[in-house]
Amino acid sequence: MNPIANFKSNVEFCVTWPHSIFDRNKDLLIIDSHVLQKNLSIANDWKFVYLVSGGETLKDLAHLPEHYLNILKTWQTPISRKSRIIACGGGSVGDFAGFIASTLKRGVELIHVPSTWLAAIDSAHGGKTALNVGGIKNQVGTFYPASHVYLVRSLLTTQPDERASEALGELLKMALLDKKQLLVDIASSADLSRADLVWKYLKPAVDLKYQIVLQDPLEQSGVRKILNLGHTLGHVLESHFLKPHGDCVLQGLMFALEWSFYKKILSQPDWIQILMVLRVLNITRWTEQPGYKPVPRELAQLLLQQDKKINSDGSVDFVFLEAPGKPRVQAVQVMELLSEAERQGWICG
Amino acid sequence: MNPIANFKSNVEFCVTWPHSIFDRNKDLLIIDSHVLQKNLSIANDWKFVYLVSGGETLKDLAHLPEHYLNILKTWQTPISRKSRIIACGGGSVGDFAGFIASTLKRGVELIHVPSTWLAAIDSAHGGKTALNVGGIKNQVGTFYPASHVYLVRSLLTTQPDERASEALGELLKMALLDKKQLLVDIASSADLSRADLVWKYLKPAVDLKYQIVLQDPLEQSGVRKILNLGHTLGHVLESHFLKPHGDCVLQGLMFALEWSFYKKILSQPDWIQILMVLRVLNITRWTEQPGYKPVPRELAQLLLQQDKKINSDGSVDFVFLEAPGKPRVQAVQVMELLSEAERQGWICG
Repeated sequence: MNPIANFKSNVEFCVTWPHSIFDRNKDLLIIDSHVLQKNLSIANDWKFVYLVSGGETLKDLAHLPEHYLNILKTWQTPISRKSRIIACGGGSVGDFAGFIASTLKRGVELIHVPSTWLAAIDSAHGGKTALNVGGIKNQVGTFYPASHVYLVRSLLTTQPDERASEALGELLKMALLDKKQLLVDIASSADLSRADLVWKYLKPAVDLKYQIVLQDPLEQSGVRKILNLGHTLGHVLESHFLKPHGDCVLQGLMFALEWSFYKKILSQPDWIQILMVLRVLNITRWTEQPGYKPVPRELAQLLLQQDKKINSDGSVDFVFLEAPGKPRVQAVQVMELLSEAERQGWICG
Repeated sequence: MNPIANFKSNVEFCVTWPHSIFDRNKDLLIIDSHVLQKNLSIANDWKFVYLVSGGETLKDLAHLPEHYLNILKTWQTPISRKSRIIACGGGSVGDFAGFIASTLKRGVELIHVPSTWLAAIDSAHGGKTALNVGGIKNQVGTFYPASHVYLVRSLLTTQPDERASEALGELLKMALLDKKQLLVDIASSADLSRADLVWKYLKPAVDLKYQIVLQDPLEQSGVRKILNLGHTLGHVLESHFLKPHGDCVLQGLMFALEWSFYKKILSQPDWIQILMVLRVLNITRWTEQPGYKPVPRELAQLLLQQDKKINSDGSVDFVFLEAPGKPRVQAVQVMELLSEAERQGWICG
């Protein structure tokens, strides 16, 4: 695998598990044990299987040495740069296995087969791997795109439908970054189940992500920052409420849109159109739900400042939306952001 | 630092430590404590200094989590991709600090200031970082070239002269890979001290290394393999006798040359010319020294097979020499290699 020659992964859509693709005598399968339990046939006749438990603990750097020893004990074959690691699980399994693949023998080939809708639409693409240090997320990592990403419908649909809801935030984010009709198209499919909806628009969403990533694979020019739309407040909500990443991004998206409208960056007609799409999809803001407890302002500030995307002057590059397909990245002071979040009811002073 | 845009480090030759280059309020200096002790002024007014003890223990993956926590505790500043790590020490410090730089925040800028002649002539260049797993060397690593390498004469000459001898193996290796006059030039400078000799030919040796590395930065086409000239047996001797890498490579070089001649790959006139250069430089083979105890064959086999450069069919890509500037990489069976090493007296059956 050569990250220099090719940052674009080959993305393949499959109805069922693509058994014939893998060399079950040579490849190492790193798989979430819960995924395997529901899809036992995956590991049939597979010689080298490394079981993991998905989640943030897997990504803790403290456990990396032990994992490395165990992986080398499991993968009893001459390992070269052409050896392949197949990562099957959600985002944390992809982050972990990707880091291993990028550093073992200075890099072996990596293939992602995401098992969650969220990983399928987002984290499996774009070449980011990540580990946590001392409880702080994604402090360590590499840029290391998979050579192939297989999106397997039968695997993804073994999840309950609410897991597909978690991908809705990223799907809508991509739709909002799209100049074309994606947002309207999605709204027209609102009667589908969440899983069918995400599967239907997986390809255009993933294609758009690669379009953006390829303009700025190593996050240098800044283009890639637009993918953070919805993530700034999203991460605060995620850290505080310990709710799924995708759900929090969806809420963060609504915060960013309303702020864009409030600052007159987003026009009223566009704002109303977006609100209608959200209503058609039955998406509501947590702040409108009874029992929502706003995040204490001081805590929100701390969580924001821990985020690795903070600038050296303490400001944050926030992604506003001018119109669908027209994001605008603008540095804002943390205090300004907190005041707006308070005004909207997400946090309390 | 962008490994994609630029695999060639900027190499600067300095007479004294280049204080003005560094931002002592922002950069993190990772430095070998023994080097600092002999050059205390380096760390003057430096805000973030991380002291390490060079050697293989530093490279043990088992200690990485602890180092990461301590580094984040030490480097109390907003860290971004533009932040810089300055690595000052020998090869192990460079390997370690390079790995940290390549993975912290998915990569910060890396600057090498090697303190040993061996690192100055070899490991600081070419973008390889490495850690050991479970006692096996360089199982884990990344390709991550330094943006700059500073070769500082006053720093390098604080070492005793015998440390310069350790760079002689790599210097002669580069001279043998050079089509031009380097070998003859070096022989004509045999009256210089080892340190003066290595300093004099540092630039052409380093230039040639980049010429080779840039043809195959990620070790894919195979061109870069020629840099292993002398390393196959060298690694065995290093693991067994626990002697300095550079000294072992020099011995491995003589093994490779004699084998090349024995197999009629290297012509007699070239072989004699090389032998004369070695004699002028007062280089002798360990096997000719009284008290040399050959490596037991079984042990040598084990050590060879542990080497990460073994092919999947169990053969080894060995670098022969056809003539100065004309290396030939050829797969040989481990048994064949062992028999030749026995014939030459390096190992015993």
